[in-house]
Amino acid sequence: MTDQHLNETFLADWAIHSRFGAVEGTNGVDRQAASAADGEQRKWFQELLESHGFTVRRDEVGNQFGLLELVPGAPYVLTGSHMDSQPTAGRFDGAYGVMASAHACFRVADELRANPEQARFNLAVVNWFNEEGSRFKPSLMGSSVLTGKLVLDEALGTEDPKGITVRDALDAIGERGTSPVFGTGGDLEVASYAEIHVQQGRSMEEDGVTIGLVNATWAAHKYDFRVLGEQAHSGSTLMADRRDALLGAARLVVAARELVDGFEAEALHTACGELTVYPNSPVVVASEVRLLLDLRSPSAEVIGEAHERLMAVIERVKREDRVEIEIVAEHSWDQNPYQEEGVALAREVAEELGLTHDRVMTVAGHDSTNMKDLVPTVMLFVPSVDGVSHNLNEFTRDEDLVAGVDHLSGVIRRLAAGELTA
Amino acid sequence: MTDQHLNETFLADWAIHSRFGAVEGTNGVDRQAASAADGEQRKWFQELLESHGFTVRRDEVGNQFGLLELVPGAPYVLTGSHMDSQPTAGRFDGAYGVMASAHACFRVADELRANPEQARFNLAVVNWFNEEGSRFKPSLMGSSVLTGKLVLDEALGTEDPKGITVRDALDAIGERGTSPVFGTGGDLEVASYAEIHVQQGRSMEEDGVTIGLVNATWAAHKYDFRVLGEQAHSGSTLMADRRDALLGAARLVVAARELVDGFEAEALHTACGELTVYPNSPVVVASEVRLLLDLRSPSAEVIGEAHERLMAVIERVKREDRVEIEIVAEHSWDQNPYQEEGVALAREVAEELGLTHDRVMTVAGHDSTNMKDLVPTVMLFVPSVDGVSHNLNEFTRDEDLVAGVDHLSGVIRRLAAGELTA
Repeated sequence: MTDQHLNETFLADWAIHSRFGAVEGTNGVDRQAASAADGEQRKWFQELLESHGFTVRRDEVGNQFGLLELVPGAPYVLTGSHMDSQPTAGRFDGAYGVMASAHACFRVADELRANPEQARFNLAVVNWFNEEGSRFKPSLMGSSVLTGKLVLDEALGTEDPKGITVRDALDAIGERGTSPVFGTGGDLEVASYAEIHVQQGRSMEEDGVTIGLVNATWAAHKYDFRVLGEQAHSGSTLMADRRDALLGAARLVVAARELVDGFEAEALHTACGELTVYPNSPVVVASEVRLLLDLRSPSAEVIGEAHERLMAVIERVKREDRVEIEIVAEHSWDQNPYQEEGVALAREVAEELGLTHDRVMTVAGHDSTNMKDLVPTVMLFVPSVDGVSHNLNEFTRDEDLVAGVDHLSGVIRRLAAGELTA
Repeated sequence: MTDQHLNETFLADWAIHSRFGAVEGTNGVDRQAASAADGEQRKWFQELLESHGFTVRRDEVGNQFGLLELVPGAPYVLTGSHMDSQPTAGRFDGAYGVMASAHACFRVADELRANPEQARFNLAVVNWFNEEGSRFKPSLMGSSVLTGKLVLDEALGTEDPKGITVRDALDAIGERGTSPVFGTGGDLEVASYAEIHVQQGRSMEEDGVTIGLVNATWAAHKYDFRVLGEQAHSGSTLMADRRDALLGAARLVVAARELVDGFEAEALHTACGELTVYPNSPVVVASEVRLLLDLRSPSAEVIGEAHERLMAVIERVKREDRVEIEIVAEHSWDQNPYQEEGVALAREVAEELGLTHDRVMTVAGHDSTNMKDLVPTVMLFVPSVDGVSHNLNEFTRDEDLVAGVDHLSGVIRRLAAGELTA
């Protein structure tokens, strides 16, 4: 096929793919993990993979694999991302990576079928289960189980806000497998991993870069806070007698934003996106608020300093507003690099193809963050207009989408030939 | 019966009554409007009323009435409060008023049966539907429908957070009547109204007052705000690009508390007890937050000044945090007096009985706030230890409970004899 034909084929499948879980009247989707829309898309995706000669399997945590054995018994080059989305989200996040991976494998598979002597490894596409972590926490669930960072039973027992477990949700869409595929206990082996994603920022667009060579993940510190006050009548209770958990929580939300001003511009990102109030009645002072708050920075030193300042704010709020503030859970990580060999390989492919490229860090975590601890990994970005992310209006231009597929195909071609694996 | 026997009878029924919806391991209750526990309590209450010769009816919005006709065709002295509670609440709020009213009517009924010539009016006890407004909004639902302030169909169509309507919830517990009883279209007429409640504050306890002669409701201004931002990835989006609805909402919660400091101590009460976030995901900047905020004061001038300052804060937050803030609904009222004739009658009764008494304002609304616009009304308080309210640990001493029943009996006796009605 000509390059133009390949691009048209990709864009045609991409257009169909974006219809699953489409939010009416928008260009975005609502396709949370193991929802009905997720299930329908997985069925369609299985048919697509099978129509290109791939065999489809899913593992016990619902990771969906498309497998093509070219070299009997050899390990697999794995590539993919996730099709699940936030409750209202763009159609590119994750989904682009899965579709780009599938089409890159289709191209390389055709080449290797024609020239079987060039294949050292087999090819596998993956649609990871529950990367987003919106319906079921934590995020990166599928890749965390595969890489042994999360226990399978714990993942399967996780409940959504309605009390439905991952186990039951996967069964409801027929996507829970009965045995591991890759990883511990699996019958297949991963040789290397590649993933492509739209950038969730606007630096590449501003700098005119088509291919982002992802070299590290930002450092972060994430907190699950419980603020405890005491229920009281919100009208009649003397102000001096109140211990208002929502007031304490609101002070933390404001403090998180104000922390940023103590550092250089964009050196620190802070956020609180999830906050729940009990009993959440208009006439009752709240007795308990849970909130998830996080600090992110390219610099672990900035995170450390921001953490100290946040703890000082907490002591002040506890004292002045007479509330308790507990850290229910927290986890932090330093700046987390990808293998430089993978970055170098991706740069060579970009230069071959004449695509502009640059090193770029990722703020958000990706399934590749897990996979790079297991096997040689390549992580790639294409630009996103205005960096809009986790929003119905997320957008990436067609020319960047197809350039990404071209580039990823080049990466997969080299990985299948044995590059990055000694 | 002796006074002591009457008190013991009241306390025995009161002890049974407090078991419905009891929260295990606490002294409090969870008995929201038209819940299963509310339904079971209503059945028990019906039997109690019938055992004292009262006929039980309910109207179309689930107000439960115990009726005793002593003077054929005459209007009724109505007395009561509500048995529904906040999600986790004390056992006295509302419930004490219903039980005190029932026992006051039982006593006065026995007296009037013995001396029928003293009765000018008949007796009715009421258990108002959904005073709390926690499961179904607005509060004071039953008395608002009876007094024509809320349209019946609107009340019946109101949904709880799970989408269950008042109509279906009342049907589920068999408590939706087929015709009005009192008010427009009803076959019975109200002559006057009396209600007793535990004070939701601590001034009476501190001042050593047993009977509060409620002379007015505080002024108030209540707001339903919608804060609109834009969904974005909460990690990767540049801080400068964010329009964070939860940040805007948190600033309002903090501002409400800080408003108080601009006035004399306790001249202004402010609160936000209910706040909901969308999409409420840890990795998404919130696009919409709804919050209910209110200002309360004995002084309408203070409310007016606080309103102006709040509006100035809102303009600043809109500008600085780049969010929209809409007032979806608001309502306000001036200081709202009870009839002085009712206050005078209650004072005379307290003096007869040798009970300490004082004029006191109510911060919270009560069903009497509606009824006083229809008929002569008496509103009474008994003390609450430390003023604890809307809390599992709410507490009023037995001696205050029985003093309140004695006092209310005196009020009902006079109302039944025609006092307050020209």
